[in-house]
Amino acid sequence: MPRSISILGAGLVGSLLAVILRKRGYAVKIYERRPDMRKEQIAAGRSINLAVSVRGWNALEMAGIKADIEPIAIPMYGRSLHMPDGSSAYQQYGKNNEAIYSVSRGELNKQLMTVAEEAGVEIFFDHRCTGVNLATNELTFDVLGVQKKESADLLFGADGAFSALRSSYVLHDRVNASQHYLEHGYKELHIPASATGGFQIEKEALHIWPRHNYMLIALPNIDGSFTCTLFFPFEGEASFAALKTEEQILAFFNKNFPDAVALMPGLLHDFIHNPTSSLITTRVSPWHFSDKSALIGDAAHAIVPFYGQGMNAGFEDCTVLSGLMDQYGEDWTTILSEYERLRKPNGDAVGELALLNFVEMRDKVADPAFLERKKIEKELGKLFPEEFISVYEMVSFSHTPYDTVMQCIAAQDALLAQVMNAGNFDTLMATDGFRTQLGSWINTYHQSVQQLDFGTATTK
Amino acid sequence: MPRSISILGAGLVGSLLAVILRKRGYAVKIYERRPDMRKEQIAAGRSINLAVSVRGWNALEMAGIKADIEPIAIPMYGRSLHMPDGSSAYQQYGKNNEAIYSVSRGELNKQLMTVAEEAGVEIFFDHRCTGVNLATNELTFDVLGVQKKESADLLFGADGAFSALRSSYVLHDRVNASQHYLEHGYKELHIPASATGGFQIEKEALHIWPRHNYMLIALPNIDGSFTCTLFFPFEGEASFAALKTEEQILAFFNKNFPDAVALMPGLLHDFIHNPTSSLITTRVSPWHFSDKSALIGDAAHAIVPFYGQGMNAGFEDCTVLSGLMDQYGEDWTTILSEYERLRKPNGDAVGELALLNFVEMRDKVADPAFLERKKIEKELGKLFPEEFISVYEMVSFSHTPYDTVMQCIAAQDALLAQVMNAGNFDTLMATDGFRTQLGSWINTYHQSVQQLDFGTATTK
Repeated sequence: MPRSISILGAGLVGSLLAVILRKRGYAVKIYERRPDMRKEQIAAGRSINLAVSVRGWNALEMAGIKADIEPIAIPMYGRSLHMPDGSSAYQQYGKNNEAIYSVSRGELNKQLMTVAEEAGVEIFFDHRCTGVNLATNELTFDVLGVQKKESADLLFGADGAFSALRSSYVLHDRVNASQHYLEHGYKELHIPASATGGFQIEKEALHIWPRHNYMLIALPNIDGSFTCTLFFPFEGEASFAALKTEEQILAFFNKNFPDAVALMPGLLHDFIHNPTSSLITTRVSPWHFSDKSALIGDAAHAIVPFYGQGMNAGFEDCTVLSGLMDQYGEDWTTILSEYERLRKPNGDAVGELALLNFVEMRDKVADPAFLERKKIEKELGKLFPEEFISVYEMVSFSHTPYDTVMQCIAAQDALLAQVMNAGNFDTLMATDGFRTQLGSWINTYHQSVQQLDFGTATTK
Repeated sequence: MPRSISILGAGLVGSLLAVILRKRGYAVKIYERRPDMRKEQIAAGRSINLAVSVRGWNALEMAGIKADIEPIAIPMYGRSLHMPDGSSAYQQYGKNNEAIYSVSRGELNKQLMTVAEEAGVEIFFDHRCTGVNLATNELTFDVLGVQKKESADLLFGADGAFSALRSSYVLHDRVNASQHYLEHGYKELHIPASATGGFQIEKEALHIWPRHNYMLIALPNIDGSFTCTLFFPFEGEASFAALKTEEQILAFFNKNFPDAVALMPGLLHDFIHNPTSSLITTRVSPWHFSDKSALIGDAAHAIVPFYGQGMNAGFEDCTVLSGLMDQYGEDWTTILSEYERLRKPNGDAVGELALLNFVEMRDKVADPAFLERKKIEKELGKLFPEEFISVYEMVSFSHTPYDTVMQCIAAQDALLAQVMNAGNFDTLMATDGFRTQLGSWINTYHQSVQQLDFGTATTK
């Protein structure tokens, strides 16, 4: 049994993991690169609001803080779509009124840190890890310019996309790795609350201005404001590089987002002063090194934010790890190797899903045929609740392993193409012949996927 | 114009590039991590002999040292195949008696270093680069434990698969990169010259003992010996991990390579004492940073050794760069950006070709149908010299861009499948009807590929 467990990173996943491990009796230390965000103002302007879904809530419940987070979470029951012609549309996420929940990343992180410390976790701030000796677990830190050495019995790298532990893995013989940046960057913008403190647009929705190759989104905050994010190409005709002057910025927004411009009095200031940030997807293999260390969350699988699954996937890593501790006690050799076997395919899959959902959000949702498909998916789910659950519902409202979800996509695409090619769904459903045909198609779909693992992601 | 050009790495590509740049009037410095291999014995036992082919010879000629290398190069006109049943087969490489040339990596490297120094290049040995500031080209070195700082006007990273310059690129925002290791490692073995100093097996051939999932190869040295390499899985039933004792090693070799065992008196010693090394394929994008620096050779595109193209591709990078200097003079912004545009697709393609050729060498060559195909390819090349050049010939005996070669593979596979499915080639060729049919198939193939760029790789 490791005497103590060390974690790199006091972000969302690192803090949650610390709580889980501490509650099981381990002494836990966290080393965090940044100062304590509860005491010092951290540079803002580059956060994309979080959308907590089922996998995230489950982990928060396990840590005993679901009730603390619920008051700062705003349910979003669907997508509110703001079309280029000024029209709008609404697409409900679930067939049973399910929601994903907008939460401030900073607030959630602060609460998790405090819960961790209250449970007895020690957090060392301003500790930037500069190297890990994988064989000995000797850690080197730069603490405000001073070098410091520590060692760990068992080490978790929860230190994000540019993880120091992952960097040490990548330098090791026979470690496979990739990093891929999107050709789009993002910039945070802001819709303030109304003069009376209310929400200027529908509160309980995720707002999207889909513009094919780019998009603007807005997520609600509890103070009545919305955190907006423009996802936009770095280079090209319509791009960050092309918007150089105030005139160019305003002309672009007035042409493409006139209704949003009216809501953003600080647009020009925000656009000019907020940083333009990049979006990375990473893979690495292996995820663990003997019984010494493992990667978790973004450090193992940094993904783009378009499915709102980054934190949810990282929290699910923690849930799975907790299940394995139930199963294997303190046999960390087995726990870490099972953790990787169970989670690595899902880490790869959620990265793919997130990339696919960017195309859906910025482009497909603007197509009436796509919205029709979403309605039919909902109908199918109600008619055949055992046989058909849409990809979106599996990702956001279930624990279906991401890898299983990926394997359902082609079969669902084929099924929906059959249904939509048959003609107008509502009209057809009035005929017995079509309902029989539909049942047969659903059976074929169900047979093609039913051998997959739809169990909870926590066990095989 | 940069006052001086600095190169990381005095390997094959770094030394050749230095000669080319020096001859154009630039002051050139090379920083090399290792000591001078001409003065100190470098740890042996992990070199795979080089096979110089047309792209390599062309670059050596440009550097003015082709005549110096020819005496230490042994032509290999084909593959000598040693089958599991003790039989052997021979597969000629070219239809016009072309060869690839076995050369000692160490000897070639030493000669290139000497030629570079004679041309006025300064080589600083024992200089391990520990970091590059991409914006300023400030370099940090560890020189036998002492830190040293230098700066470069223009910098080339010719420092191999684990390039320090590539590492600095990978840490930079929006640089895509991947590293992938083969599940096979390799170990150097040795067939000495006979008691009378002669070659114990056919001198002018590349010897292969194909065994499906693994293989042994042997390349001739000028002293009558052969450098052998076992390519073998790290893990599994037949693997490095499975051969733990002297008994297991001997039993394995006696069972699978009895004819080779008879030629290798030092087998057991070599197998136990020579290191087991891994094989990496890397990609990175971009390859250059403004007019400040660029990657070249393995630093830009480390590949597995199975097509014998690693050095040849790196040398071709130098040929292309030289052509661009002819074209753009000292406009290094354009030279580096054109260099990347022209070479990056070919760097990716040669990496793919090398992986594909591993399957060909260890598995396909053991199949009589494959050898039949190779014979037919040769016949087709003679009958239709304008229309059909085999993939192997394009890679090894031409300057066809690797990317073009990749794009011909599927069309050649389809053509050869048509021809072989028609029946016995020699019998069919006696009939007018088949010859007409064949002409039509060849035309179809030729039309499908003729829009591709078959020009020299040095210009677009």
